Amino acid sequence: MKLSTQHLLGIKDLTREDISLILSTAQQFKDVLQRPVKKVPSLRDITVVNLFFENSTRTRMSFELAEKRLSADTLNFTASASSVAKGETLLDTVNNILSMKVDMVVMRHSASGAPHFLAKHIPAAIVNAGDGINEHPTQALLDAFSMQERTGKLEGLKVAIIGDVMHSRVALSNIYLLTKMGAEVTVAGPPTLIPKYMADALNVRVEYNVKKALQWCDVANVLRIQLERQSQPLFSSLREYNLAYGINRKMLESLGKEIVIMHPGPINRGVELDSDVADGPSSIILNQVENGVAVRMAALYLLANREN
Amino acid sequence: MKLSTQHLLGIKDLTREDISLILSTAQQFKDVLQRPVKKVPSLRDITVVNLFFENSTRTRMSFELAEKRLSADTLNFTASASSVAKGETLLDTVNNILSMKVDMVVMRHSASGAPHFLAKHIPAAIVNAGDGINEHPTQALLDAFSMQERTGKLEGLKVAIIGDVMHSRVALSNIYLLTKMGAEVTVAGPPTLIPKYMADALNVRVEYNVKKALQWCDVANVLRIQLERQSQPLFSSLREYNLAYGINRKMLESLGKEIVIMHPGPINRGVELDSDVADGPSSIILNQVENGVAVRMAALYLLANREN
Amino acid sequence: MKLSTQHLLGIKDLTREDISLILSTAQQFKDVLQRPVKKVPSLRDITVVNLFFENSTRTRMSFELAEKRLSADTLNFTASASSVAKGETLLDTVNNILSMKVDMVVMRHSASGAPHFLAKHIPAAIVNAGDGINEHPTQALLDAFSMQERTGKLEGLKVAIIGDVMHSRVALSNIYLLTKMGAEVTVAGPPTLIPKYMADALNVRVEYNVKKALQWCDVANVLRIQLERQSQPLFSSLREYNLAYGINRKMLESLGKEIVIMHPGPINRGVELDSDVADGPSSIILNQVENGVAVRMAALYLLANREN
Repeated sequence: MKLSTQHLLGIKDLTREDISLILSTAQQFKDVLQRPVKKVPSLRDITVVNLFFENSTRTRMSFELAEKRLSADTLNFTASASSVAKGETLLDTVNNILSMKVDMVVMRHSASGAPHFLAKHIPAAIVNAGDGINEHPTQALLDAFSMQERTGKLEGLKVAIIGDVMHSRVALSNIYLLTKMGAEVTVAGPPTLIPKYMADALNVRVEYNVKKALQWCDVANVLRIQLERQSQPLFSSLREYNLAYGINRKMLESLGKEIVIMHPGPINRGVELDSDVADGPSSIILNQVENGVAVRMAALYLLANREN
Repeated sequence: MKLSTQHLLGIKDLTREDISLILSTAQQFKDVLQRPVKKVPSLRDITVVNLFFENSTRTRMSFELAEKRLSADTLNFTASASSVAKGETLLDTVNNILSMKVDMVVMRHSASGAPHFLAKHIPAAIVNAGDGINEHPTQALLDAFSMQERTGKLEGLKVAIIGDVMHSRVALSNIYLLTKMGAEVTVAGPPTLIPKYMADALNVRVEYNVKKALQWCDVANVLRIQLERQSQPLFSSLREYNLAYGINRKMLESLGKEIVIMHPGPINRGVELDSDVADGPSSIILNQVENGVAVRMAALYLLANREN
Repeated sequence: MKLSTQHLLGIKDLTREDISLILSTAQQFKDVLQRPVKKVPSLRDITVVNLFFENSTRTRMSFELAEKRLSADTLNFTASASSVAKGETLLDTVNNILSMKVDMVVMRHSASGAPHFLAKHIPAAIVNAGDGINEHPTQALLDAFSMQERTGKLEGLKVAIIGDVMHSRVALSNIYLLTKMGAEVTVAGPPTLIPKYMADALNVRVEYNVKKALQWCDVANVLRIQLERQSQPLFSSLREYNLAYGINRKMLESLGKEIVIMHPGPINRGVELDSDVADGPSSIILNQVENGVAVRMAALYLLANREN
């Protein structure tokens, strides 16, 4: 089985079959990761460069672990230590790295579309590890894997995505993936962060009352309030956000049913999520992290496209 | 043979047997490191993450080399490049990393007790690579290994620890280890840095005259003046410290006997130690560094607790 | 075959035979790098430390890839994360690292002569990866390899080195290498950056008219304007430099002959080189980058001096 694409730039470009293939391959790798010997030789002699133009310890470590467990050679490149400071263009930087015979590029960049631009100009396979406010496809894939693992399905699943949907690449990738796979999606949060037009544009329901969204859903994927992305503070305080849109145990108990709580991390404890929810029995947050390595192994493995 | 503990948080928690076991295992690894092929497969398929929330090139490199020579996979995490800047809690950070199926954590943190806190909450083995002003157990172990290697014993050995004892985790770990192993310890330095109560509290002698401490001892472990740790300058100049407490060749020659000079590094040359002493025949400072890799291999190997 | 030297400090110290040996060995490694399996076991069990006291992503990555493809273990040390900030001397830093049984040191430093100083005091093989305004020998070797690969010769080749020759370690290493190998060298650029005395001192021709230099040469090696190295701005604007000394397609077409365009990178596009030249058919800039890995593999391999 092969992916229909040479790169993993976004969920938008994937078919249902691509998504299913990545998820089923990830399950195989997850099985491997339960063994004492977690390493497979699948990408031996493949060199992967992790090009992080934006800080992201957890995503970078998850990719690096995935690469090492596939026996790939890895190189880390972070922007602060780079020629970028010397005024070199993105394309020059990447072309230089590729001239060194690197096979795959995992890339995070603050500019939406940066990996798409590169994909038009370079021969190596590119994995988008987050581009601006556009997509973060491996996060959506690991979220889907985790939802399916916990609930047994994606088709017909009711998923609420809660928080700053407008600025979130995690939200956008999740929406693309879930709607493709037949899940129903509601986005919930403050009207300033979820414009009305999103409903039509993205084929989702919009709900400004978080409680109602929770009553409706099977799974709540709670986004991080990206304080660092907002030029204008939207709330006079984090406490104010917590009171209006934060999720706590009492709220969950009042639903009269079990729902699954997810979060892409890092959590602002006491802001979008209280600790008794984040660490409670409904939470699969750490499972998401665990599944991230298996999902990234699957994506890298399938893009390397070696004969099986 | 097994350690009595699952973690290496401090010398305080180790038994005499634990210490002897680590030192004798370190000797085996030191023999390996003299060979052309310095690598052993002992920790193949073990992933170790080096979590450094405080800068420390030499300790981090020593651990990384130890891990690589044991064939472990290593991941480096440094605070400046981390989610810590995004306000994530320590426990969230470490739980995330562990969810990626990491087996061991080597951790340095500026807060005393940080690794002990973690050890209560996570399943992986933790090696404390220095926590605040509390402990630095692998440094004390490599110091003991080096003393024993040079003098043939720990029992009955007279060791002077000289300098800013009050703020030094190296001093504290050394004191715990040496008193447990039957060595006699004198701490020497300025009264402002060695309060009288330390004598009783730690079962050591206190001496404010460095010359007298040198006359008494077999081994002098000279601490670095941690200028960066002191909120109030204690001396009007480094020169003043050097004149009152620094160790030079003339002073050593006046003793009428040979003593061994040690220093955990990095040395402030011309402050606590003159170059003619640091580089002289009495100094085993570089042996300490060499032994550090073997001692850390031993600690990691024993904590991994694989069948022998 | 062996090198006449234990270190690679500069081209100045190499014989013609050394240079030929490195270039022919590099050709063998370049052949290896064309294969699907790019790794060779030549430096298995050798530990190489990359000591970068100055930022250089591309050179560091090129060395790291070379080391990994030779199956060496690698350690990275960068100055900002180091004890250097704590006031440790260079010699202490390196001695400490070597005490950990490191076999080779690849070193970049902002002080000219830093690796030569070290070579007098430490037992490990040192590769200079750029020292101040002195030398950058592996860059000159990869430049020579690339020239020879494209033109078939070094003997009798006419090479123009264009730009800030006075401050460029790339220029100096190129001049040493090319004159040793029987090439003819002209240095061209602004009089403020190429003093008259260079002609005699370095056995090169000096030309202040870039067009004339291009008409004369077979190969133009265009230097980066090192804005960051100049305390006094030499031009009122980069545009001014471009108009007087920049190379564009029109200028190349007016020559009535083909010349080869090289650049050590990173390129200031639109300053010393226009994009239609940098990306045009005359340019071998990306070949230089590719050849860099093979040349560094050759240098490391020969210095390790293992029986073949």
